Amino acid sequence: MENESANHLKSIPTYGRFPLLDRVHTPTDLKNLSIEQLEQLAKELRAETIDVVSTTGGHLGASLGVVELTVALHAVFDTPNDSLIWDVGHQAYPHKILTGRREFIRTLRQPGGLSGFTKRSESIYDPFGAAHSSTSISAGLGIAVANHFKAKKDPTYDERSVIAVIGDGSISAGMAYEAMNNAAVAGPGAERLIVILNDNEMSIAPPVGSMSVYLSQLLSSRHFLGLRDLAARVASKLPESLEKKAKRAEEYARALMTGGTLFEELGFYYVGPIDGHNLQQLVPVLRNLRDAEHIGPVLLHVVTQKGHGYKPAESSGDKYHAVSKFNVITGKQNKGPPGPPSYTSVFSNELLKCAEKDDKIIAITAAMPSGTGLDKFEQKFPERYFDVGIAEQHAVTFAAGLATEGLRPFCAIYSSFLQRAYDQVMHDVVLQNLPVRFAIDRAGLVGADGATHAGTFDIAYLGCLPNIVIMAPSNEVELVHMTATAAAFDEGPIAFRYPRGPGIGLSLPAESQILPIGKGKIIQEMGEQTGDEKGGIAILSFGARLAECLKAAETLKQYGLPPTIVDARFAKPLDKGLIDQLARNHKVLITIEEGSTGGFGAFVMQHLAQNGLLDHVRFRPMVLPDYFINHNTQTAQYIEAGLDAPSIVKIALKALDVPLEI
Amino acid sequence: MENESANHLKSIPTYGRFPLLDRVHTPTDLKNLSIEQLEQLAKELRAETIDVVSTTGGHLGASLGVVELTVALHAVFDTPNDSLIWDVGHQAYPHKILTGRREFIRTLRQPGGLSGFTKRSESIYDPFGAAHSSTSISAGLGIAVANHFKAKKDPTYDERSVIAVIGDGSISAGMAYEAMNNAAVAGPGAERLIVILNDNEMSIAPPVGSMSVYLSQLLSSRHFLGLRDLAARVASKLPESLEKKAKRAEEYARALMTGGTLFEELGFYYVGPIDGHNLQQLVPVLRNLRDAEHIGPVLLHVVTQKGHGYKPAESSGDKYHAVSKFNVITGKQNKGPPGPPSYTSVFSNELLKCAEKDDKIIAITAAMPSGTGLDKFEQKFPERYFDVGIAEQHAVTFAAGLATEGLRPFCAIYSSFLQRAYDQVMHDVVLQNLPVRFAIDRAGLVGADGATHAGTFDIAYLGCLPNIVIMAPSNEVELVHMTATAAAFDEGPIAFRYPRGPGIGLSLPAESQILPIGKGKIIQEMGEQTGDEKGGIAILSFGARLAECLKAAETLKQYGLPPTIVDARFAKPLDKGLIDQLARNHKVLITIEEGSTGGFGAFVMQHLAQNGLLDHVRFRPMVLPDYFINHNTQTAQYIEAGLDAPSIVKIALKALDVPLEI
Repeated sequence: MENESANHLKSIPTYGRFPLLDRVHTPTDLKNLSIEQLEQLAKELRAETIDVVSTTGGHLGASLGVVELTVALHAVFDTPNDSLIWDVGHQAYPHKILTGRREFIRTLRQPGGLSGFTKRSESIYDPFGAAHSSTSISAGLGIAVANHFKAKKDPTYDERSVIAVIGDGSISAGMAYEAMNNAAVAGPGAERLIVILNDNEMSIAPPVGSMSVYLSQLLSSRHFLGLRDLAARVASKLPESLEKKAKRAEEYARALMTGGTLFEELGFYYVGPIDGHNLQQLVPVLRNLRDAEHIGPVLLHVVTQKGHGYKPAESSGDKYHAVSKFNVITGKQNKGPPGPPSYTSVFSNELLKCAEKDDKIIAITAAMPSGTGLDKFEQKFPERYFDVGIAEQHAVTFAAGLATEGLRPFCAIYSSFLQRAYDQVMHDVVLQNLPVRFAIDRAGLVGADGATHAGTFDIAYLGCLPNIVIMAPSNEVELVHMTATAAAFDEGPIAFRYPRGPGIGLSLPAESQILPIGKGKIIQEMGEQTGDEKGGIAILSFGARLAECLKAAETLKQYGLPPTIVDARFAKPLDKGLIDQLARNHKVLITIEEGSTGGFGAFVMQHLAQNGLLDHVRFRPMVLPDYFINHNTQTAQYIEAGLDAPSIVKIALKALDVPLEI
Repeated sequence: MENESANHLKSIPTYGRFPLLDRVHTPTDLKNLSIEQLEQLAKELRAETIDVVSTTGGHLGASLGVVELTVALHAVFDTPNDSLIWDVGHQAYPHKILTGRREFIRTLRQPGGLSGFTKRSESIYDPFGAAHSSTSISAGLGIAVANHFKAKKDPTYDERSVIAVIGDGSISAGMAYEAMNNAAVAGPGAERLIVILNDNEMSIAPPVGSMSVYLSQLLSSRHFLGLRDLAARVASKLPESLEKKAKRAEEYARALMTGGTLFEELGFYYVGPIDGHNLQQLVPVLRNLRDAEHIGPVLLHVVTQKGHGYKPAESSGDKYHAVSKFNVITGKQNKGPPGPPSYTSVFSNELLKCAEKDDKIIAITAAMPSGTGLDKFEQKFPERYFDVGIAEQHAVTFAAGLATEGLRPFCAIYSSFLQRAYDQVMHDVVLQNLPVRFAIDRAGLVGADGATHAGTFDIAYLGCLPNIVIMAPSNEVELVHMTATAAAFDEGPIAFRYPRGPGIGLSLPAESQILPIGKGKIIQEMGEQTGDEKGGIAILSFGARLAECLKAAETLKQYGLPPTIVDARFAKPLDKGLIDQLARNHKVLITIEEGSTGGFGAFVMQHLAQNGLLDHVRFRPMVLPDYFINHNTQTAQYIEAGLDAPSIVKIALKALDVPLEI
């Protein structure tokens, strides 16, 4: 069969750079290729992936690490009937190229283009979308069990495999453990689950935690298995058919006799480690696993190298985890013209300053030292820096424990990832009124990473909780002050949320200020009155939309309606006095925030309704629309969301029944 | 020392039932007791605990299982300088009795009385409050690390131990794993962390998952260690002082040579198993662990029996996990007069009916088969029932996986525990618009369990998410319909939230109805108009406050202001047509819900503001106040919250400037 196929291919002229890849339109086209041809295909796929990302930017390192694995999986398994789930999904660029998306692949992460992650709506080859880590085993188990139920009506479902590919960083999250703990006992169907541990000794940063130490031990204690050993090993692990009781007895016996690996202790059949760049090993092992019956869930331990096969990536510290557009020959990334420093770096620098003066400050990240800017903290204060791994739940409660003893922990977590620790924020921090500081990066819309990474819900999900103080800076200077304010605040939990990307270019103050808690700041007072008993428009902005409010004010001035503009600074506690004053002295009160319904606008409304002032002002809360906004530039996303200056103008004029003219 | 103490005690007349216990006011009073005296004390403590709970109700089984452990811990360690953290905290009744709270212990779970869980504000002996499971290792690690930092200034902190007692059920949660994964690598201080695995082979229900299978294997493969073995074993594990590098090398070597237990693979020193009811073993082992230095985090595996020492509890299926008041002699619980069936059982029965007709329905619980009513589902459809253990994150994404394949999963999770899976709801279910059904029990205020178990945030934290349908029944008949509606709804995620406790006593329909999505139900139309251009009051109720609205209506009638009353049924999607009509035809529009700011009222307000109708109606959203409400009766809690009939009347009249007279 393989020879025939090879002959067949020989008859096709090899035009272009990618003679084999050009012939692959769906994974079916891989089925008859020899392993040597698959090796050639992998080379082409790697070159194409590098070429693509050099023009789009994106997550390169992870994709390069799984090129051979991607080829092998699609060659061996019958996708999409077999379900292939990529944990996180940022390593799936080669997968996208092989699964009918090559013609769109240069639209990756571009407006209107392919997502930078797996996405169900994009392809039937993406059975479960992702972007946050560690979900693949749970989802895969669900699909495997569902296949069992479907098989009762349609026997073809019985033979379907479910493959979850998860990195060594991702497997350290509690969720992955919960799924493994359940898999071996979940009953029929679960035996078709194959978890592939993609061990590249890197998550985004070098991995941390006992699991990573353990995996290193495991590797150092075992040779890579040769093909013959593997065949024997896999065969011995795959009894054709065993009664359930006998199987359970065997499991017990095996665990007792061998001690087993940690994965075996959790009920998985452990196979490996094998070299994830060696198709001569990968293909037969995967075939064996595919064809074996009733073996229980399997964990295949595959060792890969992040950035493999591209020298600039291999030799880079972060293995080109996420890159800008770059020159393929030199590897040099095009960073664009230098702009104002990012909110992340402004926070990072100010936290360092605070920590120099205050040895009680502790910094905690959940596997995002560089993304949160805490890498600088680690360099300066390694003892007071904790990277807990992909473990947001633990990060928050660990911080709560520190806070009980009078330390001043900063948890720096992206808005969308803090969702992972919601119960811990509520139950361990807020309910006990412990002074944990939440530095919430990537708040609001985030651009190319799209809806999965958007930080749009935190004002609502944190704001409904009692006790917590919630701030958002209108610019980078405010972020300096808020970082210092959080450092100094010992009365209870305090959070500050700030956007992805650069500030607006203000020069930073030499000294930070401690802001008065719950007090807003009047930016400009309404101009000359129009003759009415009370004035025109007040705009109360929470967060970085303030710049758009100021632009809107310029337009409104042309209508003779210069608005009052206030930087709310705090969503909790509200500046009730100031809000009452705005409601009393203006016909229209607009609130604006980079968040969903149920946040700042809702808190203002609730307050105004309670004291009756809501009846006397035309209240217009501007929030994000009630749907997920796809990846795009941040600017375009906010225009789509209707949170830009023209939208503010439109809403203000409509509230006053003034026709829009300019 | 021990003899002296015994002599000392002999001189004290043994009056009352509890001669030893009566002498214990703080744990210091245990310090000089002999082990034999501690055994006697444990007997008295057990009798007192049984007596207390017989008058208060509460979590009895767990407390009885740890009587000896509680005595041993307080005898050996220097609490509160040493920090003792009880995971979940519902097993801490004996701990409360020994730590200065005995005189209040019969107020346990009573209005104004002691909490049924550990609580920082209650005692310095509760260093970290709890009620949700699996937080203790994270919190303990935080405290242990903080002690290290404090020790730089005050050397006494260096010798402090931190003990986290966690059950075999709780340790299956991802959060506990995240903490263990971090503990061994967290650096200085972590070596003073002692995790006591309280293995009673029970969580609330019998435990599930590979961890529980594994623990059974571990037990069956090892004898209980005798005292001499233990001393040798512990001693060999506790080198007095080792350089860090050497220690790491030893860890590697040990793991490689012995295979180690799962806990050792995670970097803990594993000691055990030992009999948790045998003080002759417990006390010396704990002393050894206390006095050892620099040994790294320790896991002590203690085997106990839930309900130990009280025959009715030991022989009960749930080991008296949570009981009503009972007769101490017979063990018979006082269930009170039979009332209407609980919302839980109404849901449970209707789900069974749906599942009989539809074999695609799957039921999922996270270790709460009885609390959610899914125990009946398990009996009837064991194959379609999944108890995933204390693993809400996995439960939700597992359900999402099932839903991708066309099955109809119901995740039955309490409102406050669903917080644990918030990111999974957002990222895996809602973003992918998958039809997972969320049956959210214990919504709103929950009575004696207090603030930790209150389900007050879900309308806000779910409602800010796009795509999801959110329902709340106004009574048990509505719950029948909503269960059936969720079963039939395949277009996307759907949630329904319902209260703890009994329905209002309606007879249940023979046939359920499929409700039209996003449509409210007019309960009563406003009566005769008062002559104004537009009418009086509309009350739009989301959830079970409808009964209070109807009571309020009776009072308002006496003012000549019979209100329109609408059962909203849906918080998402809103019945916009109906809401607009209410706003247009009434002077006052009140919304009411059993939830926080940012929920249903906020969604109604956002809609009305968008179409300008908010300017033409006096909008009064009634929500829970912005603080945590302590345990009390549910009725008293809602009065305190201002969500009862008199409060509705007050707000309605005030909005119309009518003075309150009746």
